[in-house]
Amino acid sequence: MTDDDRATLGVGMLGYAFMGVAHSHAWRNVRSFFDVPLLPRLTVLGGRDVQSATAVADKFGWEHVESDWRAVIARDDVDLVDVCTPGDSHAEMAIAALEAGKHVLCEKPLANSVGEAEQMAAAAARARESGVRAMVGFTYRRVPAIALARAVVAEGRIGAVRHVRAQYLQDWLNDPAAPMSWRLEKARAGSGALGDIGAHIVDLTQFITGEQITGVSAMMETFIRQRPIAAPAGSGVKLGGHVDGGDVPLGEVTVDDAAVFLGRFSGGALATFEATRYATGRKNAIRIEINGSQGALAFDFEDMNVLHFYDGAESSQTAGFRRILVTEPDHPYLAAWWPPGHLLGYEHGFTHQALDLVNAIAEGRDPDPSFDDGLRVQRVLAAVEQSAVKDSAWTPVAE
Amino acid sequence: MTDDDRATLGVGMLGYAFMGVAHSHAWRNVRSFFDVPLLPRLTVLGGRDVQSATAVADKFGWEHVESDWRAVIARDDVDLVDVCTPGDSHAEMAIAALEAGKHVLCEKPLANSVGEAEQMAAAAARARESGVRAMVGFTYRRVPAIALARAVVAEGRIGAVRHVRAQYLQDWLNDPAAPMSWRLEKARAGSGALGDIGAHIVDLTQFITGEQITGVSAMMETFIRQRPIAAPAGSGVKLGGHVDGGDVPLGEVTVDDAAVFLGRFSGGALATFEATRYATGRKNAIRIEINGSQGALAFDFEDMNVLHFYDGAESSQTAGFRRILVTEPDHPYLAAWWPPGHLLGYEHGFTHQALDLVNAIAEGRDPDPSFDDGLRVQRVLAAVEQSAVKDSAWTPVAE
Amino acid sequence: MTDDDRATLGVGMLGYAFMGVAHSHAWRNVRSFFDVPLLPRLTVLGGRDVQSATAVADKFGWEHVESDWRAVIARDDVDLVDVCTPGDSHAEMAIAALEAGKHVLCEKPLANSVGEAEQMAAAAARARESGVRAMVGFTYRRVPAIALARAVVAEGRIGAVRHVRAQYLQDWLNDPAAPMSWRLEKARAGSGALGDIGAHIVDLTQFITGEQITGVSAMMETFIRQRPIAAPAGSGVKLGGHVDGGDVPLGEVTVDDAAVFLGRFSGGALATFEATRYATGRKNAIRIEINGSQGALAFDFEDMNVLHFYDGAESSQTAGFRRILVTEPDHPYLAAWWPPGHLLGYEHGFTHQALDLVNAIAEGRDPDPSFDDGLRVQRVLAAVEQSAVKDSAWTPVAE
Amino acid sequence: MTDDDRATLGVGMLGYAFMGVAHSHAWRNVRSFFDVPLLPRLTVLGGRDVQSATAVADKFGWEHVESDWRAVIARDDVDLVDVCTPGDSHAEMAIAALEAGKHVLCEKPLANSVGEAEQMAAAAARARESGVRAMVGFTYRRVPAIALARAVVAEGRIGAVRHVRAQYLQDWLNDPAAPMSWRLEKARAGSGALGDIGAHIVDLTQFITGEQITGVSAMMETFIRQRPIAAPAGSGVKLGGHVDGGDVPLGEVTVDDAAVFLGRFSGGALATFEATRYATGRKNAIRIEINGSQGALAFDFEDMNVLHFYDGAESSQTAGFRRILVTEPDHPYLAAWWPPGHLLGYEHGFTHQALDLVNAIAEGRDPDPSFDDGLRVQRVLAAVEQSAVKDSAWTPVAE
Repeated sequence: MTDDDRATLGVGMLGYAFMGVAHSHAWRNVRSFFDVPLLPRLTVLGGRDVQSATAVADKFGWEHVESDWRAVIARDDVDLVDVCTPGDSHAEMAIAALEAGKHVLCEKPLANSVGEAEQMAAAAARARESGVRAMVGFTYRRVPAIALARAVVAEGRIGAVRHVRAQYLQDWLNDPAAPMSWRLEKARAGSGALGDIGAHIVDLTQFITGEQITGVSAMMETFIRQRPIAAPAGSGVKLGGHVDGGDVPLGEVTVDDAAVFLGRFSGGALATFEATRYATGRKNAIRIEINGSQGALAFDFEDMNVLHFYDGAESSQTAGFRRILVTEPDHPYLAAWWPPGHLLGYEHGFTHQALDLVNAIAEGRDPDPSFDDGLRVQRVLAAVEQSAVKDSAWTPVAE
Repeated sequence: MTDDDRATLGVGMLGYAFMGVAHSHAWRNVRSFFDVPLLPRLTVLGGRDVQSATAVADKFGWEHVESDWRAVIARDDVDLVDVCTPGDSHAEMAIAALEAGKHVLCEKPLANSVGEAEQMAAAAARARESGVRAMVGFTYRRVPAIALARAVVAEGRIGAVRHVRAQYLQDWLNDPAAPMSWRLEKARAGSGALGDIGAHIVDLTQFITGEQITGVSAMMETFIRQRPIAAPAGSGVKLGGHVDGGDVPLGEVTVDDAAVFLGRFSGGALATFEATRYATGRKNAIRIEINGSQGALAFDFEDMNVLHFYDGAESSQTAGFRRILVTEPDHPYLAAWWPPGHLLGYEHGFTHQALDLVNAIAEGRDPDPSFDDGLRVQRVLAAVEQSAVKDSAWTPVAE
Repeated sequence: MTDDDRATLGVGMLGYAFMGVAHSHAWRNVRSFFDVPLLPRLTVLGGRDVQSATAVADKFGWEHVESDWRAVIARDDVDLVDVCTPGDSHAEMAIAALEAGKHVLCEKPLANSVGEAEQMAAAAARARESGVRAMVGFTYRRVPAIALARAVVAEGRIGAVRHVRAQYLQDWLNDPAAPMSWRLEKARAGSGALGDIGAHIVDLTQFITGEQITGVSAMMETFIRQRPIAAPAGSGVKLGGHVDGGDVPLGEVTVDDAAVFLGRFSGGALATFEATRYATGRKNAIRIEINGSQGALAFDFEDMNVLHFYDGAESSQTAGFRRILVTEPDHPYLAAWWPPGHLLGYEHGFTHQALDLVNAIAEGRDPDPSFDDGLRVQRVLAAVEQSAVKDSAWTPVAE
Repeated sequence: MTDDDRATLGVGMLGYAFMGVAHSHAWRNVRSFFDVPLLPRLTVLGGRDVQSATAVADKFGWEHVESDWRAVIARDDVDLVDVCTPGDSHAEMAIAALEAGKHVLCEKPLANSVGEAEQMAAAAARARESGVRAMVGFTYRRVPAIALARAVVAEGRIGAVRHVRAQYLQDWLNDPAAPMSWRLEKARAGSGALGDIGAHIVDLTQFITGEQITGVSAMMETFIRQRPIAAPAGSGVKLGGHVDGGDVPLGEVTVDDAAVFLGRFSGGALATFEATRYATGRKNAIRIEINGSQGALAFDFEDMNVLHFYDGAESSQTAGFRRILVTEPDHPYLAAWWPPGHLLGYEHGFTHQALDLVNAIAEGRDPDPSFDDGLRVQRVLAAVEQSAVKDSAWTPVAE
């Protein structure tokens, strides 16, 4: 309408499935609610299946579609490459983009192996010298209640962290008829519940506490080892589709269905972790509880607009976990949204992620979480896998 | 990108404040998640304050801005007029639009008086004959948990309705320093808590039960009768701003701060209603409970993705209120969104409203809730006001 | 065992059904957990049906059984008469006991009519002059979370009371096969849901706020007007028994099944009340919410060890309803019980009632709630009934 | 009162502190609510500190006090010995009682070592041959919601167990000024959080699932290693007293403050366990969640009258965790208590334990949980301790 004198940020996105949809929405809408210093432009969507990619591009207003990811990176009108593909392609794509001088947002987990992640972190370090930015998409950090949790801990209101208990519980694989997908193939996904959802609780607990996990003891399990082979993957945002009866061919599940592990944080806290797709009745329950010497926090993503906070400084007569409805104007990100009591949803985290990244680029500083952060998560996941194959022996996380 | 052969629906929106923002987002995004038969086009945004309107237009991609609402209606490229202004202008605008052959979506409450609402309903009836559609914006009907509640009742799963208790609780006026706004002026807003938020629980309980309120007994109250006059209203989506100290001029609050009333439903159920902006600690708590002869439902908008359902047919040994997380693909509207357990937020209701309206227009049928529905709500509100000034005497709702 | 030099307090109890059992347990056990200045002695249990009374007496250790209530009062070894019979006999029994110089604990509601209640209050006033004490059994005041709520309000932590919403929800009459009982006969019970359970929320809200209800507007309803006649009543603690099929004779339900009313408190607060035995899914939900200018409280008896408190003085960033688990040593009555986090149950309220009464007697002061308090509740109930038959017209509560 | 022709069961109880109080109440009151076939008689209370023991005896009606536990066992009028002392004396006392032909109820954990527990189980096996019964006091099994959970699993309603997560969270040691007690001395208590509270969640999860824990991987921690030495222990039911300031002598904490461990159940389920006295804000939170292939359960002792149950057989449209208020007449133990919706408290579990034990004795069958069950728990605890000192190496539980 008016002459907006803000510069644009040309985005080239690779991948168009679940994460591609979430990212598309964020790039498209961040400017509507936040005063971004750069206007994201949905320049090009890259996807091998041009027809599917075009369908998504039409829905969200991507200007172009490319079948070759290298062509996306090569475009002059692309300033930032957003990697939303399965984990086995992250390293190659992200490194190529960084080397081409493009900022990178890469979905988590950063890579399918520590080696790849190290190469990516190294590439990010080199790129940083020329002002090129790299960020890994641990988007749950941008849920306002999580950002508030971090602030409460950073302000010292829970004191020294003593206990962390974190669970990421889903149940969509509980149905034996749920079909194969790339998420169940080690070659594509790297790992199963551990890398896909366990990575989130590793990152979130490190983020909220401001501490590192220094060692782990772990068990992993695959409850159902064969599943029906379904229609070609990548056909939308759904997980957990159902294949009815009949003579369907079966594929091998080569990743973990569930992982549980103990951990120690750098400040001495004891931790328990659980990531599973078999927690019947729990749909996307990211549950994090932290007990400190002065207070405590509790969060559940199935009630994502709420943070529970126990302030040990209160009189015991009226102390109790406060149910903070994180919708006040002075809560993180909230001033831009609706009046108090009007909730945000899943996609808002992605919008906030786009906001924070755009701000970092405009301000010439490194965004969080960095590829180094992503590498650190990868090293925790690797330690978990090593411990699991060594009869749960304590396994330090590599530095 | 591709040649989309779908026709467009040119939208002209009047108003750009809180509701204008919510509607803009809906018109802009409905096509990204739903296969709409007509593509909404954000043709023109009408607002007297062109500068403010332009700012909103830029954020959401409205193509044009008009300062004269009549000019919006007159445009050939406007097929639908979306009225998001304060209630005192609804009748004039909506009737003019209908008479000009434009579909109308009108924010609630339909009007500031029963007389106006009757004229609007009559205009809608005339327009209907030429295929022109009218809908009133009781958007909470489109919250998936509410739509599910309606379905559960319609299937007979709670039996005959015996008790309804409904509350719409906010607290933003509790602060004596919260400034005047058009929502506190009878001339602009028609009424206060009753018309603004009470209207929603009247509509929702009638919608969910499928019954009408036949009479009421009421009390209304204004707790704080003078408030500081703030900067010009209409400057964004915030409610409840704070004016600090000093020698600020005071304005008269001429509407109700709170209303409570008893009601009887057409099927015989007893009801209690409460609408207030003084319920300290409750931010936007739309709480509805319905007990029937065979089951019960409970809902709270501060936990809007959840419906509680008690099935009286269960064995008493394992009966209990079920906490239904309304995020499954077979829940209303949900197939288009994220996997189970990923929540929706406040604005999704508006997106669903746009979807339902576009579908009705494309299919040549009347959308719900109609202007007749809006008129019926208005008559309940009028009965409440009459009872309140007659010492709570029982007051039948006009038919 | 040892020579306990404490004096005893001989208790004569009239009635042995639900309330009789609860009171028996309290008299028997208060000395085990509290250092009572007088040792209650379960001297005599009065009941017309000697066999049933004897069964209860054996279970709880009552020393004697009397079929004639006058004989109970007349005994020299009875210092206190505990009236647990249906409401139609309260006045006669309590007045006779007071006139005989016996302290009286009388179950609620105080009487079946205001006239009787006035006579009882007058008798209590006369008795007070000779140091004889009278108390009405609104035992829920002794639930620790309720006592804490009163303390929080009295300390000014919620400021001026603006809104009260109170519900007493049960569902045991929802089943049409639930049989007749004295609680459904006006001649015996005085009223139905209103007097039996509505009386509690009238008393509790007046107690917690420290204010009086000054007027009401009401509706009452009897949903099911005929019910099977069951075996003789008084056969234990059960409510809501089921009569299966067949050719059972039917009795007339002559009391209300449900009552809803609006009220005004002496400080200006608006209130809604609901008492029903048809709230499917709610078993004994006494729910009280109070919003004040500085804070708010919420309580539900189905979660009776918890008080929710919103402190408006907290920063909006971390404000929220605190879930106070009322099991700390500095909570009312709790120092005598278990460590923190170990819950109390229904009968504890009766034990605390016995404690408070014994202490008042020993210390020569009047216990709360007095017969005057009981009379005041009765007047509210009478106003509710009057309003209900006058088309909900506003009805002041007599002073 | 009447001639009760029921035989009595003379109880001799050893110990009079927290557990002694809870057991006293149970023995005293079980006959009031249940039709017990044998009437428990509170014959003799044994305690080294006669004055303290006498105080408790007076409160609860114990007929005699003995300072020598052997004298308690030797009495002819003692049929059952109830061992409520610290763990270091369990083996000697329980074995002596069994050998004297007395039934035994022994508090948990059964003993301070596997060796002692084995001797006790052997003694119980020998005693069984002469009809002498032995039971270990895992009283939480008798919480109605837990008993219901067991029934739901046994009926197959959650299918094959896949995940168990269990936590016993307290915070009373979080305060560095909380004094020493026998519970913090390895010589007396055997272990700390692990044996005292971890034992409960080991027993409960095995009980509810009907499966055994076959191996563990563990970490243990003592956060605060020196604490003030307080007044002589054994002075009542309080835990977590506070010692203010000053020059108090310090004692060594020789047990664990917290233990976390992974486990595998015999059916293949993965489990996480956590027992701690440092979970700020959690007072006595025994939280157990079990996900099976067909459903799920969740329980929290801080809301002990509730069981959450997810029935996977429900339609996804209305499936959800049911909040079962376990107060219905057809719930375990509930027919004897109050009407629906009236809650039970902590001590009721002990009353139910007394009931079940008396019934087993009268019916000539072995009660649950047996000393073998107690031994099995002890072996799990031993494996936890072994794993913790072996860098969390996987440690099978001895059979």
